[in-house]
Amino acid sequence: MNYRMMGKFISRILLVELVFMLPALLISVYHQEEKTIFGFLTSMVIMMAVALFLYLLCRKARKGFYAREGLVCVGASWIVMSLLGCLPFYFSGEIPSFIDALFETVSGFTTTGASILPEVEKLSMGSLYWRSFTHWLGGMGVLVFVLAIGRGRDKSDGYTMHLLRAESPGPKVEKLVPRMKDSAKILYFIYVFLTVLNVFFLLIGKMPLFDAVCTAFGTAGTGGFGIKNDSIAGYSPYLQNVCTVFMLLFGVNFSCYFMLAIRQVKSVWKDEELRFYIGTVVGSILLIAWNVRGIYGTVEETLRHAAFQVASIVTTTGFATADFDMWPSFSKAIIVCLMIVGACAGSTGGGFKCGRALLLIKSLRRNVRQILHPQKVQVVRVNGQMVTEQVLDNTNAYLAAYAFITIFSFIVISIDGFSTMTNFSAVLACFNNIGPGLESVGPTCNFGGYSALSKVMLIIDMLAGRLEIFPILILFSKSTWSGR
Amino acid sequence: MNYRMMGKFISRILLVELVFMLPALLISVYHQEEKTIFGFLTSMVIMMAVALFLYLLCRKARKGFYAREGLVCVGASWIVMSLLGCLPFYFSGEIPSFIDALFETVSGFTTTGASILPEVEKLSMGSLYWRSFTHWLGGMGVLVFVLAIGRGRDKSDGYTMHLLRAESPGPKVEKLVPRMKDSAKILYFIYVFLTVLNVFFLLIGKMPLFDAVCTAFGTAGTGGFGIKNDSIAGYSPYLQNVCTVFMLLFGVNFSCYFMLAIRQVKSVWKDEELRFYIGTVVGSILLIAWNVRGIYGTVEETLRHAAFQVASIVTTTGFATADFDMWPSFSKAIIVCLMIVGACAGSTGGGFKCGRALLLIKSLRRNVRQILHPQKVQVVRVNGQMVTEQVLDNTNAYLAAYAFITIFSFIVISIDGFSTMTNFSAVLACFNNIGPGLESVGPTCNFGGYSALSKVMLIIDMLAGRLEIFPILILFSKSTWSGR
Repeated sequence: MNYRMMGKFISRILLVELVFMLPALLISVYHQEEKTIFGFLTSMVIMMAVALFLYLLCRKARKGFYAREGLVCVGASWIVMSLLGCLPFYFSGEIPSFIDALFETVSGFTTTGASILPEVEKLSMGSLYWRSFTHWLGGMGVLVFVLAIGRGRDKSDGYTMHLLRAESPGPKVEKLVPRMKDSAKILYFIYVFLTVLNVFFLLIGKMPLFDAVCTAFGTAGTGGFGIKNDSIAGYSPYLQNVCTVFMLLFGVNFSCYFMLAIRQVKSVWKDEELRFYIGTVVGSILLIAWNVRGIYGTVEETLRHAAFQVASIVTTTGFATADFDMWPSFSKAIIVCLMIVGACAGSTGGGFKCGRALLLIKSLRRNVRQILHPQKVQVVRVNGQMVTEQVLDNTNAYLAAYAFITIFSFIVISIDGFSTMTNFSAVLACFNNIGPGLESVGPTCNFGGYSALSKVMLIIDMLAGRLEIFPILILFSKSTWSGR
Repeated sequence: MNYRMMGKFISRILLVELVFMLPALLISVYHQEEKTIFGFLTSMVIMMAVALFLYLLCRKARKGFYAREGLVCVGASWIVMSLLGCLPFYFSGEIPSFIDALFETVSGFTTTGASILPEVEKLSMGSLYWRSFTHWLGGMGVLVFVLAIGRGRDKSDGYTMHLLRAESPGPKVEKLVPRMKDSAKILYFIYVFLTVLNVFFLLIGKMPLFDAVCTAFGTAGTGGFGIKNDSIAGYSPYLQNVCTVFMLLFGVNFSCYFMLAIRQVKSVWKDEELRFYIGTVVGSILLIAWNVRGIYGTVEETLRHAAFQVASIVTTTGFATADFDMWPSFSKAIIVCLMIVGACAGSTGGGFKCGRALLLIKSLRRNVRQILHPQKVQVVRVNGQMVTEQVLDNTNAYLAAYAFITIFSFIVISIDGFSTMTNFSAVLACFNNIGPGLESVGPTCNFGGYSALSKVMLIIDMLAGRLEIFPILILFSKSTWSGR
């Protein structure tokens, strides 16, 4: 294992995190929040020290960086980044328990949006900003960012590939352009562009600038941390609808936007995952609106709440305008299923991903055909292209890993004695990076009541969900740490 | 599709069902239950007519019987068998709704044990016997029985194989002896032997003969229909322990008993699935006993209830001595997971099967190793033998089908408005052929409150669970019904 190369990379990530912490510090200075300023400064000194130490230790890295190093590096970066990113909350005394601060930060970086805070409005402006910003940084991935801004070395494309593949969501990584580094740049450009557009539309609706920026961060990363106790419910219908639209936009595979930009409208129109996603969203909205009719005064209000909640859950954002835990059980059933399906591959959304669900359905159909006609060779096609057996195998392995982790986490956090539905939905909400679950972790509640053991389990779930399981799973595998 | 061959086969199955109905009729005659006698006689006349009609229609069957025919034939047989097997309940007026009678019968044949009856003690003796007997017949499979007693034609081994493969549980069908027909005979011999042994041990504990036979039927098929309103709770601790032991015995792969009979003790001892099963059972009993300590008076009582419920759930029997819905949520979480895991492949138990779970774990480990060391070729071994990619593919497809059916059914039955946990556990309880779920379908409740639509959905789930999904799935597949 090439530890030095990994150490060097992690030190670079910490520097990036440090730089991104500056705006939050400035906001605190502007609002004269003394404790928060102390928190940020202490954290930044520690981060600087760790980064320097790592850099000096790992300066002379030998070459050789393979899939194994890529996966371990991504897993380790995210853990280190979270451990140091939570320090401002802890040192400022705003979240006095370290494990709670870590939970909140991991929830931020992984774009989960599950909170242990009963009242977010009590937080200082600087902390609120940093909390929302973790979503934005985690959404597209900090490694992708480091790769995008890194010096161009064509020969290191393999190295870039291994890292990008480990951090990006979806069954397979598509190169938009021949060089991975350029792909990373394009992705970040689209991300920034859409975020700015989101802020713009929120400002038009007369949302204050600070609120607009923080809300856009939460929407872009499909995170879901709000800056109000009632999430988005207090804003005007127009602003809620803007959120609905942008949540859905950030749940689309970013390569679709790239295709649109280079005028390949036809291939976007025919994209099977996009169709699956749109079909799921529209179908769910209509079914839920039909089911909750009568709860709200007008058809407009019914559709608005249904659309908002569906968008929020399917993109795994987790904003709320209504307490869906009070909805009838048919709507809740659809919401639980949307929690699992999640957004498109290659978007900032989490969950199992529409693309994978589609692959599984096709693979299952193939299997049925194979049983019926054992002689014929059957292949699986998506968008007209044949899917390799390797990708199908990995998708199936993903489902198995997904099922085992869900079951294991569910048993572990059940020790705390909350209701079965609370525990089950808590695991789904964290593992799929959504945020709110049902019952005691519903939209109006929080995760503060769980024990430290359960919080650690849910932290692992959030990381595993964001990094698509394997980078975290192999940290626990014996054969990762054994010699070649 | 060779419809005539299938029709001929189904007519033979109906005859067997008819013969097996005779003891129930005799019991009704002995107890002078007029309405029940009428019910059985009417049903038997109808069955005879249908069987004769099918036989005359399909007498001249051409040869050619492939995997497709095997699967469709098994699916169709079970549906016809259930449609006619429920008639006695309906005609006797004991279950006035046809859909309820069908639910109860499918629940019997599939060894689910989910009931729509609030009070089973109100049933007549003849109906009680028939209800329990459906478990016994469904447990090992009526097709296996027909094959075992059929005339010996060596050349039809492929035909037998296709049918057996479609009806037997587990990721792959093992031939105990070179000829399938002989394997079927051996399986039924073990089944009868263990059932008789079970009755014997129950009689020693002073259980009345009728109770002992019915209870043994429910245990052998891992079904779970009791003949008392409080299931097994009213019997003595000795009788409860006998049930625990025999439930666990019927959850073991029957080929282990065959191996023991031919003195291959070592290969049984080293059987990985058996070890997985025993480990799961012992671990769950200890964890639950620790979790529910204090609820019961003595350590003996605590262990007895924990062991009984674990055995009942993991083997998917569904008998109850305690209302586990009242247990703390950690115990309930373990029970929900046991519901999914299920018993060993090749046993009468349902669920996902220990063997499949083991295969998935191994396949997942292989996948992780493959990611870490892409150059090496990695294989999966069980009991020292290499598992083919075909079996692994099928196991993964099974998991995908399992997940989709669970999600789909969950959404459909949620329309009725029961609680989310009730609906989720109802699907698990039916699909895994267990019987009781949690909350409104818990051990002290029943499925009577669901609408006809939900009952039909759950009936399909029970059949899909018992027949290992594919024979039912392909009935809904377009490519089954299209020409070659």
